[in-house]
Amino acid sequence: MIELYTWSTQNARKVTIMLEECELAYSIRPINLFKNEQKDEAFLAINPNGRVPALIDPDAPSGPVVVAESGAILIYLAEKTGKFLPPSGPERYGALHWLMWQMSAVGPVFGNLAHFVAAVDPDSPRVNAYLRATMAPGVFAYPLKRFGDEAMRLVSVLERQLEGREFIAGELSIADFATYAWFESIWAGFRARQPVIDDLNPNVAAWMTRLATRPHTRRGMERLAWGVDLEKESA
Amino acid sequence: MIELYTWSTQNARKVTIMLEECELAYSIRPINLFKNEQKDEAFLAINPNGRVPALIDPDAPSGPVVVAESGAILIYLAEKTGKFLPPSGPERYGALHWLMWQMSAVGPVFGNLAHFVAAVDPDSPRVNAYLRATMAPGVFAYPLKRFGDEAMRLVSVLERQLEGREFIAGELSIADFATYAWFESIWAGFRARQPVIDDLNPNVAAWMTRLATRPHTRRGMERLAWGVDLEKESA
Repeated sequence: MIELYTWSTQNARKVTIMLEECELAYSIRPINLFKNEQKDEAFLAINPNGRVPALIDPDAPSGPVVVAESGAILIYLAEKTGKFLPPSGPERYGALHWLMWQMSAVGPVFGNLAHFVAAVDPDSPRVNAYLRATMAPGVFAYPLKRFGDEAMRLVSVLERQLEGREFIAGELSIADFATYAWFESIWAGFRARQPVIDDLNPNVAAWMTRLATRPHTRRGMERLAWGVDLEKESA
Repeated sequence: MIELYTWSTQNARKVTIMLEECELAYSIRPINLFKNEQKDEAFLAINPNGRVPALIDPDAPSGPVVVAESGAILIYLAEKTGKFLPPSGPERYGALHWLMWQMSAVGPVFGNLAHFVAAVDPDSPRVNAYLRATMAPGVFAYPLKRFGDEAMRLVSVLERQLEGREFIAGELSIADFATYAWFESIWAGFRARQPVIDDLNPNVAAWMTRLATRPHTRRGMERLAWGVDLEKESA
């Protein structure tokens, strides 16, 4: 059975969405980020970059496959099942284009924005209180603007791309799963700062609803929701 | 003939390396970033994200292919030619894993580091002088540390991965081309700050030499070197 080494993160939810949508059996091997288990030698042997998720498929036809990086895992599962990524032609490369857009832009930009937002949030965890205490006042203003502006630009790019399309690359694909996992996690924060964000981006709002109402996608998100006790579940 | 819409950037050099290594004919369509041509409607119709490179292959077997995002272009060219990405099996997903590592980590981290280094460099262009003049003193210290530390960590991850391997995923692959294009551009800057970086990372240093001495890789880098006048060449 497929083993998913993971914790509750945006990148990992892309993979549980895909596993659920493909109705594949899988077991979760918790890598507790609060215990820094992603830096244990056992996990570094799977992914030397020390990041979840990683996946092992012991039953692959040409021998066990070990794959890390959520985008690569999505391609692996798509090619294993023949689902959510056309095998050839312009549609295949459209889906891969938008998957790469998510990997290289949406993930890093939303991730950096969340980091700097947490750094100035008085309710955020201790590490960020330490940052606030040791850094000069105003030190986070510029990176907050840089990553905040870029995040809003990325939302507008998706809004444009979804004009006249139900899904990002036309047909539902791994590009949607990858992008949705990040948008879903950060949208409430965007909405708190810009209450009319849904009205300004009707295509994005409709696309998010389209995915949120898919039972398999929802189950993939819930499987790794914040607060789920993965260690207890898999004990 | 393949058309590459581009300017002289790290991400674009990945693609010229691949085109040269595959000995494919291509023409360059300059998108002048200094004139903001990447935001022209004509280019946004090709890539709504307004970023180079993008590629059009009018002669693809199942109809013209338009593909943007350097990582997706590399996969497209690999699947078109059957080169530098195994068609199946564990080796395929190893190469895709490391390609995604480059796209999601090396590119964004090195890119952000270069941005913040330029912001504090008195010899950097006007836009950064503006930033320095309008921002409080010390405002760049924290992001410089964040992206500088992460960049050094990524170097050490590559050093570990290259232990006992000639190339990142074993055989030479698109993961090497993608990663080399960024390492080559930033290594001199790393070395200026840490003169013994080559001694500390002998596997990385040997791998960079291995690529730098490949004539096709070198020609791909030179094709889009800083200062090459792409507009004059293609006029």
